Amino acid sequence: MNFLSTLIKKRDGLELSAAEIAEAVKGIVLGEVADYQTSALLMAMFLRGMTEQETLALTLSMRDSGETVDLSDLNFEGTPSLDKHSTGGVGDKTTLVVVPLLAAGGVPMLKMSGRGLGHTGGTIDKLASIPGFRTELTVLEAKAQTRKIGAALIAQSDSLVPADKILYALRDATGTIESVPLIASSIMSKKLASGAARILLDVKVGRGAFVESQAEAEKLARVMIRIGNGAGVPTGAVLTSMDEPLGKMIGNALEVKEALHVLTNRAEVEPRFRELCLILASHGFVATGKAKDETEGLQMATALLTSGKAAEKFAEISAAQGGPDTIEKIVASLPNAAVQHPIYANTEGFLHEMDAKVLGLLAMRVGAGRERKEDTIDFAVGIELCGKCGVKIANGEILAILHLTKNDTENRLPELEKAFRDALTIKPTPLLDERPLILLTL
Amino acid sequence: MNFLSTLIKKRDGLELSAAEIAEAVKGIVLGEVADYQTSALLMAMFLRGMTEQETLALTLSMRDSGETVDLSDLNFEGTPSLDKHSTGGVGDKTTLVVVPLLAAGGVPMLKMSGRGLGHTGGTIDKLASIPGFRTELTVLEAKAQTRKIGAALIAQSDSLVPADKILYALRDATGTIESVPLIASSIMSKKLASGAARILLDVKVGRGAFVESQAEAEKLARVMIRIGNGAGVPTGAVLTSMDEPLGKMIGNALEVKEALHVLTNRAEVEPRFRELCLILASHGFVATGKAKDETEGLQMATALLTSGKAAEKFAEISAAQGGPDTIEKIVASLPNAAVQHPIYANTEGFLHEMDAKVLGLLAMRVGAGRERKEDTIDFAVGIELCGKCGVKIANGEILAILHLTKNDTENRLPELEKAFRDALTIKPTPLLDERPLILLTL
Repeated sequence: MNFLSTLIKKRDGLELSAAEIAEAVKGIVLGEVADYQTSALLMAMFLRGMTEQETLALTLSMRDSGETVDLSDLNFEGTPSLDKHSTGGVGDKTTLVVVPLLAAGGVPMLKMSGRGLGHTGGTIDKLASIPGFRTELTVLEAKAQTRKIGAALIAQSDSLVPADKILYALRDATGTIESVPLIASSIMSKKLASGAARILLDVKVGRGAFVESQAEAEKLARVMIRIGNGAGVPTGAVLTSMDEPLGKMIGNALEVKEALHVLTNRAEVEPRFRELCLILASHGFVATGKAKDETEGLQMATALLTSGKAAEKFAEISAAQGGPDTIEKIVASLPNAAVQHPIYANTEGFLHEMDAKVLGLLAMRVGAGRERKEDTIDFAVGIELCGKCGVKIANGEILAILHLTKNDTENRLPELEKAFRDALTIKPTPLLDERPLILLTL
Repeated sequence: MNFLSTLIKKRDGLELSAAEIAEAVKGIVLGEVADYQTSALLMAMFLRGMTEQETLALTLSMRDSGETVDLSDLNFEGTPSLDKHSTGGVGDKTTLVVVPLLAAGGVPMLKMSGRGLGHTGGTIDKLASIPGFRTELTVLEAKAQTRKIGAALIAQSDSLVPADKILYALRDATGTIESVPLIASSIMSKKLASGAARILLDVKVGRGAFVESQAEAEKLARVMIRIGNGAGVPTGAVLTSMDEPLGKMIGNALEVKEALHVLTNRAEVEPRFRELCLILASHGFVATGKAKDETEGLQMATALLTSGKAAEKFAEISAAQGGPDTIEKIVASLPNAAVQHPIYANTEGFLHEMDAKVLGLLAMRVGAGRERKEDTIDFAVGIELCGKCGVKIANGEILAILHLTKNDTENRLPELEKAFRDALTIKPTPLLDERPLILLTL
């Protein structure tokens, strides 16, 4: 039995060949290898680590385990397609801004996204809160739309990377999630199978992210960049902070609304979230050759945002995919929760921490996210934060508004309010050492 | 889920508490823990190792996973019961000599044994080659018999240590067999569940054994001794060589015949095998307080052997369990293979190696052993070696006699003969550095 010898080789810390890894992944996907053997290999990979060559081989084998999409024919006068990917966070709705921004600037943006699970949200759930907006397009339909209007926002096909579904479920059940090479191969196999010609990664760091330490996140980013480049797809990354939620809104319709506020240059937008969107777009312009450097990229992005062109593009995408055809109509169409419950500060001081993970889980508990894959979502509910870390808080001031169902309001408001307050740290002294949003560009 | 946190703790190299291990084993046996989670834990245990406390806790939890036998009431005028256990080898039929020897000397010997698998044989298969000999006695029956005649040789109940069945099968499929703490807990959980008041371990070292290096075997022996003592059962061990088969015979009826040859003081017996039986018996006498030291124990054992008392005891056991009631009748009742095929030396020189594992697998292939648990055995077939390592070989001399079925003789004799010859190394120079049979006494 070849799998067993591969397993023993990895157990003993020897480097597996690309052929051995490919055979193992094939056996796993075909069901020839038992789950208990796969999980033993995952634990051996977790504890022994993986070399760069092994990680690349694993990623490519996973990529090739199912259907793959080819977007090489999708380019506008030589500008290649780009995929922007976030490793997942709380309140992260950048895709909703960055995709129309880059598309408005002439980059082909056929973006496939996933659904949310646990404390992190998913772009597809956010889009689904827009009445009529269809994300279940075929790749052919999405390509045709992208050729016509520059962008499409669709759900990732289930037939992409079946190996990842098997491996991820086993890792989740066997304590082998937090391994840089396993995380990297899981993410990059899906990115590579999605077929974009350039990849831009937003690697989240902190309490609400996969990895809490910047050193680990940098390692993960570098491994993913090497995989992308090794697979022939130029890849870049930024490391961004995810200690507190991104922006002010957590919850599907709320996050769409916040993205639209950025696209329409509303004054109340959280400046760090807007800044991240512009920076990611600027990297996208540079990566696709539309801008010669980040400064030029940033100028382009800012101009497209302030001129309203990016907003127009969002409306165009919405219309093409069955949603309302103007920003105003989209905003008006979004569902509202039955109850908006304000939470008031009962002390004064400075906001030092807003635990992104706790808030993400709270949003999940009120119905904005899924504890299990099969759970359904309430698009209207969520959390609207009124400040960000560092702000001065007056006693009695509104800290947040919980957007809740009637049932939650009647039955467990004190418990939800307590969970919210527990996520916050307010101190009498100012916050001096705030972590910047953009930690590193690679 | 508690199992997952236990798994992650072990993954991270932290020591598990006895309670955590007990809960994990319980979950595994009750089927609450999935096989893929168990195998991940086994790989983490394999790679992270296990502390002495963890190994003891694992062993005790495994012991308590099913039925346990209590032999504390089985003692003769204060002499406690003893269990002699070999870690498995090729041609190892010492139980058939040591049990009647110790019983003849007044030690209560209720011995439970297992069946053979792979290249190693099992005592129960050997006994089953004696027509009429029943090994499927209940513990109550075996206790009554032991009280009456001093000994019983029975098959280990399936209801002992169900945890080991699950863990062993998973280890076999996931490359996690060769771990000292996992081997030790597997062996000692069964010994402790069998209930004897003293344990004597024969830890095999070499090509035909679980562990090939003496250093590993010593480690294993010391871990098992600490487990036994830690569980309140005084435990000793000898390390013995298993590079070449033990004695001259491999195969079930052949091995019974060889054991009877030792018991009846026949001249042709292989002296090292006889010596090992006497030494193990002498340790047994010391461990149970029948002899004050090994010298006295060896004198007792030798006297019981040469006087024929041990042979009488074997006949008595056989008669009590449904087999023939004299040694002569037992020998006469043993099945003979259809064909005795001699293999002649085609060179001259000195026998340097007889690979125990290769010869054990060859015996299995001709029908003396099982490749899978469900395979059936031919009791008559096997290999009769004519010399042992070190002997001078003349060209044309008989090296061995293969005891074969008619079918094997007609259809694959050349292949079997070649396999046999490949197991031997004959060199022109004498063998000077023969490994002693007894390597270490602990």
